[in-house]
Amino acid sequence: MKNKQLILTKRPLGVPDADTWHLNEADVPALEDGEFLVENVFVSIDPTMRGWINDRKSYMPPVALGEVMRAAGTVGKVLQSKHEDFLPGHYVLGSGGIQLYTISNGKGWHRVDPTLAPLHKYLSVLGMTGFTAYFGLLDVGQPKTGETILVSGAAGAVGSIVGQIGKIKGCRMIGIAGGEEKCRKLIETYQYDGAIDYKSQKVSTKIKELCPEGVDIYFDNVGGDILDAALARLNFKGRVVLCGGISQYNATSVKGPANYLSLLANRGRMEGFIVFDFARRYGEAAKQLAEWVAAGDIYSDEQIEKGIENFYPTFLKLFSGEKTGKLILQVNDL
Amino acid sequence: MKNKQLILTKRPLGVPDADTWHLNEADVPALEDGEFLVENVFVSIDPTMRGWINDRKSYMPPVALGEVMRAAGTVGKVLQSKHEDFLPGHYVLGSGGIQLYTISNGKGWHRVDPTLAPLHKYLSVLGMTGFTAYFGLLDVGQPKTGETILVSGAAGAVGSIVGQIGKIKGCRMIGIAGGEEKCRKLIETYQYDGAIDYKSQKVSTKIKELCPEGVDIYFDNVGGDILDAALARLNFKGRVVLCGGISQYNATSVKGPANYLSLLANRGRMEGFIVFDFARRYGEAAKQLAEWVAAGDIYSDEQIEKGIENFYPTFLKLFSGEKTGKLILQVNDL
Repeated sequence: MKNKQLILTKRPLGVPDADTWHLNEADVPALEDGEFLVENVFVSIDPTMRGWINDRKSYMPPVALGEVMRAAGTVGKVLQSKHEDFLPGHYVLGSGGIQLYTISNGKGWHRVDPTLAPLHKYLSVLGMTGFTAYFGLLDVGQPKTGETILVSGAAGAVGSIVGQIGKIKGCRMIGIAGGEEKCRKLIETYQYDGAIDYKSQKVSTKIKELCPEGVDIYFDNVGGDILDAALARLNFKGRVVLCGGISQYNATSVKGPANYLSLLANRGRMEGFIVFDFARRYGEAAKQLAEWVAAGDIYSDEQIEKGIENFYPTFLKLFSGEKTGKLILQVNDL
Repeated sequence: MKNKQLILTKRPLGVPDADTWHLNEADVPALEDGEFLVENVFVSIDPTMRGWINDRKSYMPPVALGEVMRAAGTVGKVLQSKHEDFLPGHYVLGSGGIQLYTISNGKGWHRVDPTLAPLHKYLSVLGMTGFTAYFGLLDVGQPKTGETILVSGAAGAVGSIVGQIGKIKGCRMIGIAGGEEKCRKLIETYQYDGAIDYKSQKVSTKIKELCPEGVDIYFDNVGGDILDAALARLNFKGRVVLCGGISQYNATSVKGPANYLSLLANRGRMEGFIVFDFARRYGEAAKQLAEWVAAGDIYSDEQIEKGIENFYPTFLKLFSGEKTGKLILQVNDL
């Protein structure tokens, strides 16, 4: 049995080029006691992967050169097992990396039920992506009914869920995305009250127009000029939830928010979070999100690309904006 | 009776020039019922004044062109009164502006007792300056015993008090100031455990050396490169208390903190505050600070310049660093 593994081969400066990873063929070793073999089906493709390949301290150690590229989450099927809890035929969620097969000892892995939801949803609204939206908006942002919430990357994996959770909580939601089609989707599918197309509109002018009473929470996925435009309209005691800064991930020199002193004038708070910190409460989020999905209050989009050899062009779509909702790579047939 | 009033005459770009204000002579009008006349003695000179002369929304409306320049605080003596609570001979603290005499209706004014502390201390450790250090460090920063706290502008009015409150709370205090003499003062007078001279030392290297376990709280009075250096060493769940950003107040293009994504990786919080928001708790702060001063746990420095005609060179000392502790202008004899 042959594995294909995406190996990190160098540390990129700026936008990673195709040589950053290399697809390696390797034998799948025999299982030891307490291990099981997973055939990975879906792997999660996320902006945060860009940070993992820098040689820099962050919320996790970097992926080492020569190692299999990490994925925030993978869903697959157990093929063989010498583990008492994970048995052949079980569907499992874990962090199996970008490869066809993973051997696991079970630590950090969970069973998922393919009859409750399509498997790929466990990488999207019913997994880390949904949890990120849930804890980021509710715990870090602390929204109150009637507040105005501005979201960047609003048609993205997390942003599209944030919009719908905000509506459930009775807030006025304004989303920023790139292009007419995504902006239409913000209103028609993700329940946003207003949409700003950063590709064709002046963001600062549109924020003023669509948030006439200012911004109570800015949920930031992008950083850069849009963060500055949001800071300029922040309300008294406004909150900036730092979920990501994708506009800066490939930058060789990061643009800091020149309007950060708005936090002083408005007694604002800018706070970062990582979903892993809420691990003890994943159960709560999973239950609540599943209820909202079942009730039709939250709709989630996944864009599924196919083939492990397509990792690189798929990864680039995170930064080019050629995707809506959650980006997933399918590496084996279901 | 002739008043001298410092009138704002134009809105500066960058460092204000001498023409930004004009010293006006005017008659002191007669008192109406409910008013009293104060002879101002000490007026507070603060970095935040730079923001008030921009034509820009901030935590207070700008000083209008043609208006008397606002001061955060003034202490003086009541000369005449048609007010039942403020009587001739009373010493009073209020916001009398940069002028020799002020007519007040009493709103926002309080009596102070010159036998408990020298009058100018009510603009310093026993007034807004002390309250800013107290609420900023304790309420916004939320220090825990044993934490490392880094303070910029550490030899300044607020920073010198923050250092001493931090020591009282059992924290390790590292201060940043400009010049050898100020740095000596940080250690010898303001109780700091370590000092960094940003004029002669590489701040990022020194932070690494003096905060080997990272920075739990960064109390920022300056912004700019020092804010970036602090963000780079921020600990998990670290807090950046935004008290000021004096390095940027005269900048025509503000330098945003390029390392702001450290807040994300470390789940940090950067939060601004204005002391006025704590007005209901000034009594608590005043009592506590007075006790610490009486016990010898807090020492405060005031640099008193003389003459209303010296407002402009005095004001410039805020930005040139030619001052230690609290800068005060004495406009009338005591």
